[in-house]
Amino acid sequence: MAFTDRVKEILSWYSSENPGTLTNIARLLNHGTLAGTGKLVILPVDQGFEHGPVRSFAPNPAAYDPAYHYELAIDAGCNAYAAPLGSMEQCAGKFAGQVPLILKVNNSDTLAKMEPCSAITSSVEDALRLGCVGIGYTIYPASGQRNTMYQDLREITIEAKRKGLVSVVWSYPRGTGLSKAGETGIDVCCYAAQIAAQLGAHLIKVKPPSAHIEQEEAKKVYEKYQIPIGTLSERIKHVVTSCFGGKRIVIFSGGEAKGTDAVLEEVRQLAAGGSFGSIMGRNAFQRQKPDALKLLADVMSIYKQAS
Amino acid sequence: MAFTDRVKEILSWYSSENPGTLTNIARLLNHGTLAGTGKLVILPVDQGFEHGPVRSFAPNPAAYDPAYHYELAIDAGCNAYAAPLGSMEQCAGKFAGQVPLILKVNNSDTLAKMEPCSAITSSVEDALRLGCVGIGYTIYPASGQRNTMYQDLREITIEAKRKGLVSVVWSYPRGTGLSKAGETGIDVCCYAAQIAAQLGAHLIKVKPPSAHIEQEEAKKVYEKYQIPIGTLSERIKHVVTSCFGGKRIVIFSGGEAKGTDAVLEEVRQLAAGGSFGSIMGRNAFQRQKPDALKLLADVMSIYKQAS
Amino acid sequence: MAFTDRVKEILSWYSSENPGTLTNIARLLNHGTLAGTGKLVILPVDQGFEHGPVRSFAPNPAAYDPAYHYELAIDAGCNAYAAPLGSMEQCAGKFAGQVPLILKVNNSDTLAKMEPCSAITSSVEDALRLGCVGIGYTIYPASGQRNTMYQDLREITIEAKRKGLVSVVWSYPRGTGLSKAGETGIDVCCYAAQIAAQLGAHLIKVKPPSAHIEQEEAKKVYEKYQIPIGTLSERIKHVVTSCFGGKRIVIFSGGEAKGTDAVLEEVRQLAAGGSFGSIMGRNAFQRQKPDALKLLADVMSIYKQAS
Amino acid sequence: MAFTDRVKEILSWYSSENPGTLTNIARLLNHGTLAGTGKLVILPVDQGFEHGPVRSFAPNPAAYDPAYHYELAIDAGCNAYAAPLGSMEQCAGKFAGQVPLILKVNNSDTLAKMEPCSAITSSVEDALRLGCVGIGYTIYPASGQRNTMYQDLREITIEAKRKGLVSVVWSYPRGTGLSKAGETGIDVCCYAAQIAAQLGAHLIKVKPPSAHIEQEEAKKVYEKYQIPIGTLSERIKHVVTSCFGGKRIVIFSGGEAKGTDAVLEEVRQLAAGGSFGSIMGRNAFQRQKPDALKLLADVMSIYKQAS
Amino acid sequence: MAFTDRVKEILSWYSSENPGTLTNIARLLNHGTLAGTGKLVILPVDQGFEHGPVRSFAPNPAAYDPAYHYELAIDAGCNAYAAPLGSMEQCAGKFAGQVPLILKVNNSDTLAKMEPCSAITSSVEDALRLGCVGIGYTIYPASGQRNTMYQDLREITIEAKRKGLVSVVWSYPRGTGLSKAGETGIDVCCYAAQIAAQLGAHLIKVKPPSAHIEQEEAKKVYEKYQIPIGTLSERIKHVVTSCFGGKRIVIFSGGEAKGTDAVLEEVRQLAAGGSFGSIMGRNAFQRQKPDALKLLADVMSIYKQAS
Repeated sequence: MAFTDRVKEILSWYSSENPGTLTNIARLLNHGTLAGTGKLVILPVDQGFEHGPVRSFAPNPAAYDPAYHYELAIDAGCNAYAAPLGSMEQCAGKFAGQVPLILKVNNSDTLAKMEPCSAITSSVEDALRLGCVGIGYTIYPASGQRNTMYQDLREITIEAKRKGLVSVVWSYPRGTGLSKAGETGIDVCCYAAQIAAQLGAHLIKVKPPSAHIEQEEAKKVYEKYQIPIGTLSERIKHVVTSCFGGKRIVIFSGGEAKGTDAVLEEVRQLAAGGSFGSIMGRNAFQRQKPDALKLLADVMSIYKQAS
Repeated sequence: MAFTDRVKEILSWYSSENPGTLTNIARLLNHGTLAGTGKLVILPVDQGFEHGPVRSFAPNPAAYDPAYHYELAIDAGCNAYAAPLGSMEQCAGKFAGQVPLILKVNNSDTLAKMEPCSAITSSVEDALRLGCVGIGYTIYPASGQRNTMYQDLREITIEAKRKGLVSVVWSYPRGTGLSKAGETGIDVCCYAAQIAAQLGAHLIKVKPPSAHIEQEEAKKVYEKYQIPIGTLSERIKHVVTSCFGGKRIVIFSGGEAKGTDAVLEEVRQLAAGGSFGSIMGRNAFQRQKPDALKLLADVMSIYKQAS
Repeated sequence: MAFTDRVKEILSWYSSENPGTLTNIARLLNHGTLAGTGKLVILPVDQGFEHGPVRSFAPNPAAYDPAYHYELAIDAGCNAYAAPLGSMEQCAGKFAGQVPLILKVNNSDTLAKMEPCSAITSSVEDALRLGCVGIGYTIYPASGQRNTMYQDLREITIEAKRKGLVSVVWSYPRGTGLSKAGETGIDVCCYAAQIAAQLGAHLIKVKPPSAHIEQEEAKKVYEKYQIPIGTLSERIKHVVTSCFGGKRIVIFSGGEAKGTDAVLEEVRQLAAGGSFGSIMGRNAFQRQKPDALKLLADVMSIYKQAS
Repeated sequence: MAFTDRVKEILSWYSSENPGTLTNIARLLNHGTLAGTGKLVILPVDQGFEHGPVRSFAPNPAAYDPAYHYELAIDAGCNAYAAPLGSMEQCAGKFAGQVPLILKVNNSDTLAKMEPCSAITSSVEDALRLGCVGIGYTIYPASGQRNTMYQDLREITIEAKRKGLVSVVWSYPRGTGLSKAGETGIDVCCYAAQIAAQLGAHLIKVKPPSAHIEQEEAKKVYEKYQIPIGTLSERIKHVVTSCFGGKRIVIFSGGEAKGTDAVLEEVRQLAAGGSFGSIMGRNAFQRQKPDALKLLADVMSIYKQAS
Repeated sequence: MAFTDRVKEILSWYSSENPGTLTNIARLLNHGTLAGTGKLVILPVDQGFEHGPVRSFAPNPAAYDPAYHYELAIDAGCNAYAAPLGSMEQCAGKFAGQVPLILKVNNSDTLAKMEPCSAITSSVEDALRLGCVGIGYTIYPASGQRNTMYQDLREITIEAKRKGLVSVVWSYPRGTGLSKAGETGIDVCCYAAQIAAQLGAHLIKVKPPSAHIEQEEAKKVYEKYQIPIGTLSERIKHVVTSCFGGKRIVIFSGGEAKGTDAVLEEVRQLAAGGSFGSIMGRNAFQRQKPDALKLLADVMSIYKQAS
């Protein structure tokens, strides 16, 4: 398969990785509707674990069945499907090879009340036997349990890279160190993406930032250098640039389910700001399948035009 | 990617394998010109090690450079490229993800005079870091060193399968137990394919058999049951059937370089007999590149029609 | 399931084994038509590897397909199905749990000419992942390679027992140490069963012995004590008794395919002599399926009456 | 390469280290503009992790890209470049061998509010595969998490030394045990350097100390012995001497960005006091590249004259 | 340090290696008199082990002392010094960092009479603790012990590469498979270099080949394609080309000590043929030191002109 110049350029940013990891990054970039554009739309379904099944799947009961998500990701032409061990295992054999898989190797539930820290729920060995292209891991910068998460990630990443897998990091600032507004503050979002990159992540997923600035020291810098962060697309551009000068794949989540127009408007801003793509869970699987397919097609179309 | 019915059928024969291995079998079947047909044409280049560089590459000196073979396999749309460690490593980084790779993990040279037994020259760990879909291994049934080879293969296979890789076995009867004619005898060829299958191979490569029958006990059976082995296509059909009733992927090598007409006629017989494809080395890379591309295209065309 | 007194008695002979191994012996004894009787009829299919596919399966070409054997063992109500890795793997997923499995972990082919010594072709780890109740292993007492085989078996057995599996040993005297007649001589057969038992086997498979006595020292003893070995049933009784006073499960193979009357007459003698059952390969799978089912039903009926 | 007497003298202080570690200390001392002088200027860029990307790189946006720092260190003739995993990996392949690398194996961010304790973010194995001469580690003496840090460092150091790497320790007193002024107090600074040396560090990095004395017991000693600590150069001399009588390489950081004159004046004091060099991050990379090159050249020139 | 275009080009041939290994290849290419030219002259001293001390060092008794060789390599500006464990250890601490080291990890002596197979005498761990850039290993293609050597090398190489070291392979065909003349035959020499490359070697050392052709099959090819092998420089060119199309570093040994004119004439031919350099042992250390320094300077001068 001939690679596009854009895919070759992106691969060149990972010059220390072995050919196995480069191959799996290429598989992500060369699959589905957006193959070859350097853009990605990924379907993540860890909400059953993270928020509980009823909150996640009652809006569209077909989605209780893990097979539904495989089929949605395949039919929509997503670049990848990401899920925790159980639902990925449930039908990985049946759909083997039909869509790149990212095994979410740590997870948290909302039953316990504790300083945020996900539990490790699967392993690199699982990822290999399930045929995944990579592993996914969530960190909560600002949590008092930060060190546990960073250190566990470090061990998982070094094994994953040795075995040719991709490391995808969800970086969600949260914990006693931050205000609620700070969790999506622009300075914090840039910082969260940076931390994930420094921990060796190949793909980084953050939330679309607000214009809020959490840290006093940062506020001075934004003012002094007049960094434009007024619009979402300006903020996206700022996050992408601040993460290794744009030389890491940074994608954005959509967060809670919302109306179709709102989703598409947000994606247009993401694309305009230079996002490498979207990771879209609830907005996809909580819609009826035809609506979800339509929405994902529209989202991909926006990214295609931006590529 | 939607899978064809034929690919789904083939995958159904490997019901004990984990999704990782199924994914990699699917990658082989879904790549290149023959993607989805259930047929494969693989470019193997281990002759530098097996026969020496001059015998292998002097006919087409561009082929001394390992990059040449990657490019040939990619440009021709082969399902995979197979090679030993050194030449695969030489530019695996450069071509990462552009063609499925099979790492040949044992090799023999013709300098030593000894009972046939290849040395293990690379590992499953190498296959993972180089981004390969599987490992390749040669056994020499009929060698007095048989047990060493079978047992080494066993250890490599169990590790490969645990990590989601495909096992490809070259089964070439050779050694003190056989006459020269016996090495390609029809009974021996069936037996060689069977042994590879029993050792857990997913893909089996044997040589096109002659009508010679080596073993006395076998000769009686062929006569009693009037098994048709007069033409090459009959013999191919017989080999494929005798290997798990046709439920293993069996492909055939072309052997020494020969004229284009002879190659294509042989491939037509292979295809007519139900071969899953060809593994074509010297007949490909010893030709000038345009001729090789033309030949491979013609070979693929024959298999496509037969699928 | 309430266990019969006979099953409890047999289990009592293995008092050093852990509950896992006892559970798997019980699973063998409590499955199929002969469940609870303390008798076993096992279908073994390793002839594809041991004699080649054509000699083995041409008489009944449906048998080229490994699925055929699973179905035969299940439909006939056999206590277990035994096979090498490849054919067991081919559809272990499909038939999982429908018949107890014994993975044949070493195998030999007839292509190499060498002192008898099977190659190790699979492992305890394979047996576990395929859901087997135990492993099967062939030793060739009288081979110059004896120590290699005994020592490899020892390592496999200790691992199998640690993990709760059953050890089934095929003990076939063969090699430079014996005359051809000696291979089935009564003294040698008793000796072969004893060696297997001493190596820790739970189930022992030997060939029905002839009245030939191979060893001079043994001949004197048979004469002095007037041990009755004139009829097959007398010899069977003698083998069973000489193997831990009857406190090991000893079963007999039928050898080459022969007429139905001959098979049944032999089984009657085995049953009369107190054999724990038969392991019947070629006489089963080389017949058309209805004939094979009828024959196996008759064999089981004979053992049922003898229990 | 002929070594200078000063380099030989410095190496003689590390007589228990293996030749591998000595070789890597020598590589640090013999690279760049200051090669052979026994002085070092190191470019450290961990501020993206430690302070966030915007505060660190907005003043000079080219510095968002990790390649910028490699090039700055190479072009300026620094003895080494130090960074955390992600930015070091991003282009280690591209710049392999062009500047000695120190992998910063633990890091902290400012998002979490917790007793100071950096997370381990990379490993000795990473340092080897990236071609580093050594590892860098931060301890926070005075933190209640002190023991965790010291003990983690101990494990990393013993492995690093076994594999021939250099241990570089950033020793920054911080935590509930100290007043704010105490963090840079002269007694505390001497103590911090001592702790790093006792933990087996080969290179020690501390902050330029103030004349403040934190500990009562220490204050009495300073008074009794009339230790001169009035000027910065006196304090530097005191820190260097108090750390193994001057037989450990102690270098000083410059802290926050400031005007060129201020930087150079401080460096003159450091050099006058016998500092082994400077580790200069923000003052280097937050300037435009030509200014940074000029400043670094001036700094190196000061050290060269002092050598 | 700015790299020359030639060094960058050579490094580009090793695209699957990690930055650590690339760094150490660069250290070899950038050290000593030939730094940056892409040419290498290496001093190897394993003759004490390989031929005994008296045969090796009596011609110049100062050479009994391992320190002599370090000093010779340093003073002459060699790219590297290669030796077995004992003599390397003897003063590795004293000369740490002054010359790149290659630890010879297997060795043979001439006391035992056996099929050629060197013993493993040191390890990757030794290489790291001694500060070496790589390991050296001898294979004897054509030996009946071939598999042992290839397989041991494989394990050492994978560990060396993981830890960022360079693999240097001496490939000396020898053993029952070859005639005496065949050991240096041109076809065999090309084959030997190829085998080393396929086993993952970064640097390959072979002997200058004669015009003898050992293998019948090869002879036909040389005749058919009229490959020019009449002069030594033609043969060198042929060896270099046949080893990955010139994309591996191939250097040649000088063999037995001979007159200065003969040595220099041979080196001129090597250089004219495109050799990447020489590995010169006895011709260097068996001369008095001033003569050795003069000779090595002349050799380097020839390579410099050819670069």
